[in-house]
Amino acid sequence: MIPTMLLTPPEDRRWGIARQMGVTHTIAKLAPELTGDDPIDDRAALDRQIARYQASGLTIAGLEGDQFDMSRIKLGLPGRDEDIARYRAMLANMGAAGIRLLCYNWMPLGWLRNRFDLPARGGATVTGYRHDSDAEAACGPVIDSDTLWANYEYFLAGVIDAAEAAGVVMGLHPDDPPLSIIRGVARIFSTVAGVDRALALSNSPAHALTFCQGTYSLIEPDLPALVRRWGAAGQIAFVHVRDVRGPANDFVETFPDDGHTDMAALFAAYRAIGFGGYVRPDHAPDMLAGTATFAGGTSVGYSAEGMIFTMGFIKGLLLASAAS
Amino acid sequence: MIPTMLLTPPEDRRWGIARQMGVTHTIAKLAPELTGDDPIDDRAALDRQIARYQASGLTIAGLEGDQFDMSRIKLGLPGRDEDIARYRAMLANMGAAGIRLLCYNWMPLGWLRNRFDLPARGGATVTGYRHDSDAEAACGPVIDSDTLWANYEYFLAGVIDAAEAAGVVMGLHPDDPPLSIIRGVARIFSTVAGVDRALALSNSPAHALTFCQGTYSLIEPDLPALVRRWGAAGQIAFVHVRDVRGPANDFVETFPDDGHTDMAALFAAYRAIGFGGYVRPDHAPDMLAGTATFAGGTSVGYSAEGMIFTMGFIKGLLLASAAS
Repeated sequence: MIPTMLLTPPEDRRWGIARQMGVTHTIAKLAPELTGDDPIDDRAALDRQIARYQASGLTIAGLEGDQFDMSRIKLGLPGRDEDIARYRAMLANMGAAGIRLLCYNWMPLGWLRNRFDLPARGGATVTGYRHDSDAEAACGPVIDSDTLWANYEYFLAGVIDAAEAAGVVMGLHPDDPPLSIIRGVARIFSTVAGVDRALALSNSPAHALTFCQGTYSLIEPDLPALVRRWGAAGQIAFVHVRDVRGPANDFVETFPDDGHTDMAALFAAYRAIGFGGYVRPDHAPDMLAGTATFAGGTSVGYSAEGMIFTMGFIKGLLLASAAS
Repeated sequence: MIPTMLLTPPEDRRWGIARQMGVTHTIAKLAPELTGDDPIDDRAALDRQIARYQASGLTIAGLEGDQFDMSRIKLGLPGRDEDIARYRAMLANMGAAGIRLLCYNWMPLGWLRNRFDLPARGGATVTGYRHDSDAEAACGPVIDSDTLWANYEYFLAGVIDAAEAAGVVMGLHPDDPPLSIIRGVARIFSTVAGVDRALALSNSPAHALTFCQGTYSLIEPDLPALVRRWGAAGQIAFVHVRDVRGPANDFVETFPDDGHTDMAALFAAYRAIGFGGYVRPDHAPDMLAGTATFAGGTSVGYSAEGMIFTMGFIKGLLLASAAS
């Protein structure tokens, strides 16, 4: 497994910290609101962003998240064919640039937290999610699971051959939180059965999963079994390391050594399937309460200190797992 | 193995960071210049310092370094008997307070570095030592190895029964840098033979070693063999985790995953001997160049971020090693 980090533009101290921790390959999100540039279905825009990371000594190994507004595709709105054509162009550009991994999701609302200042071990601050049916009532477009499935199948059929042709593996991220509906919007990849159904849609080697530990731990208690099953089939493309406590409708993030997951067993499972792909620290506690910016979105769970601890933890786990 | 950290007074952000990383037991140095209090051969002074840590949620598991001026003891000067009596009182106080570990050293000059701003991985800053016979010429009292040995034997004979009676294990730290002489002062615990000779002086269970990985890696290439030999005899009391590159007369500190040591093999050796004692991160790179205070001494190699990375690394190594 190859440790990496999610580093978004503009460059900040986390980019330097990544290099110091021995990270040479980064995961990037290159959406226009972050880059201040065009979407990366424009090859020149992608190349400009690649150069930006290269100037800082980092190679982009993969992309993660929505690289441009995916609303029309996810919601099945008029214009989605145009956006799917752009997505295909993005995949071709990625392949041509040697970026072989794309972590994507199928959450119209994105990943969600509604608690941002929970005290954790030693006074660190973590995020969490507590489902409240009233507070989570619909406040925008309502989408049922059948519609979301139909839109997903349409999307997948529309892009997977382009991914395969480009040599890009698309790793589907499970829905976070893994609940069947939030604010009236269905979440179809919040169960193992849902994910298996997605996998059954295509045998393309470009069709795979992002194994987000924290999310899957809220779905299925035996994570190593999931890793062995999907991993043996070559269906794990990418790993997110984090941990949580609590049930899916009321959970909190934790330090990676302080949650409900047996990390040693999980890393033994990665080793057993011979997983050699990228792994990155995901949401981590804020170790300097008050310094993280919660409003902006991506800094939630991405404080530098929490990332440093998780990266050290991952490196220790990988080293000892490899030697055992 | 139980992860701990060296935390010296006054309280700073590292104390809070330790708690956040799940550290409940700390290693302390309680010398008057740090505490602003009396030396801890005074029981009330020790109790005041213990209370200081307790107020921050930390239990003192062990002490490290010179807790008061050891010059007369180490140099064999008039007055050493008085200081040895104080040392015995300190040991008795420690035992009565439940502090069972004392990491001590036999370096009249202390540990030394003479390079403080070396660039390391990704632009992190590390310390190093390059021996220069001219620059290292004597500039103070000159002591030969025979005298230092005689003083050590006198000291050990004078305190080891007090340590044993108090239930305190004294873990001898090797000389860092492990060179036979610096500035005209002999360094007698800079070879395996020297350490073995020290161990042969007493069979007391209170007489043991601090296994400082970085130092021993400059003395002996096969660290796991040292761990197995000394560990099997119950002679390892404490472990310092850090790594370096280069020979003993010209080495630099490194991140713990970036030095010349096979950490996985080393932690497998700790597990093989069933070592259940305390382990702490030792010198780590400064990840925010310029923020460490080099003048004061203890902040060299103790920047918060470097400690966080090493603690994560140790926790990952321990977890995977225990499961293998």
